[in-house]
Amino acid sequence: MKVYELKRAPNARRVRMFLAEKGIEMSYQQVDLGAGENLAPDFLAKNPAGRIPVLELDDGTHISETIAICRYFEELYPTPNLFGSTPLERATIEMWSRFIEFNLWLPTGMAFRHITGFYKDRETVFPEWGEECKKNAQLWFDKLDERLVEVPYVAGERFTIADILALCTIDFGKVVGLRIAPAQLHLQAWHERVSARPSAQA
Amino acid sequence: MKVYELKRAPNARRVRMFLAEKGIEMSYQQVDLGAGENLAPDFLAKNPAGRIPVLELDDGTHISETIAICRYFEELYPTPNLFGSTPLERATIEMWSRFIEFNLWLPTGMAFRHITGFYKDRETVFPEWGEECKKNAQLWFDKLDERLVEVPYVAGERFTIADILALCTIDFGKVVGLRIAPAQLHLQAWHERVSARPSAQA
Repeated sequence: MKVYELKRAPNARRVRMFLAEKGIEMSYQQVDLGAGENLAPDFLAKNPAGRIPVLELDDGTHISETIAICRYFEELYPTPNLFGSTPLERATIEMWSRFIEFNLWLPTGMAFRHITGFYKDRETVFPEWGEECKKNAQLWFDKLDERLVEVPYVAGERFTIADILALCTIDFGKVVGLRIAPAQLHLQAWHERVSARPSAQA
Repeated sequence: MKVYELKRAPNARRVRMFLAEKGIEMSYQQVDLGAGENLAPDFLAKNPAGRIPVLELDDGTHISETIAICRYFEELYPTPNLFGSTPLERATIEMWSRFIEFNLWLPTGMAFRHITGFYKDRETVFPEWGEECKKNAQLWFDKLDERLVEVPYVAGERFTIADILALCTIDFGKVVGLRIAPAQLHLQAWHERVSARPSAQA
């Protein structure tokens, strides 16, 4: 079993941090996204979306998409629980995970691509759209700060997959100048709390 | 229990179609997105993302995000199974659901917003970016057509949540001129097969 990834890519970090929380050992194979290795036919046969991370099982089956990979391991190794223990808690964690993915992660990723032009050899970029995405991501720094007045972790009283998604997104946002503002005290305290976990170094 | 929605919105249809497959009766309350009712403080208290659908439980708890709502009902009413029966099947269905959401649904939704300017009273739109999104969505019509050579349904041998996501996305895409091409025979056959289900009228 191994994971195809790129060490510095934020989605790769999400999976590594999740596996570290579970105490699962994993082999990793690096994929050179900058050189377009992810768009070569042999990689597209593993993942038609041409993205990392991709989990390869021992029988050659491939599972792509960070959350699908993480949930697969959650079911095989239920402790510690990171996706929720009851239908309502699972729904709440998924809701917050998706808030993070669609409102913070996606605009941050699009800001990165459109402002830096990192993939402009293979996609048309619109820097003004990138700046708009950056503004949209910033709005969710405020929403998270408000949320963290009420609860210590993104999805509630305990650390979950939603915190992993939020931490990896916020840390990645630095590449386009997205930073927690001094006034966002609750978000800052959460960031320190979550960054102190050993898994944050995975 | 009720769902806040807008009858013609594609995410609302995803939830209605899912509940119809499960045979679950539901009350619905319409939210006027065009008038910005979803951005009013009382709605933002239900869903900080200001989006529909939102499920309201009898105790006043709110669950937002289509997939979180659907999975909640999947766990309460496991039959018929639409999210998968084993860890590997669940991972495969989630992978394909996310392929659809990130590569087909998102660019279709952005194409709609940026080309038609439907929400231009509340967001800055870039029509050229909308056209680019439309092209990106079209690429996945081809990928799905290739996939459906191998299997009769998006995630494999049977109808799942991934088909609901794909159907509602493809049908919505008509508003920006996205259509299954005559040469995409497998996608066309799948579309007829899935559209014939009674739940498609929900």
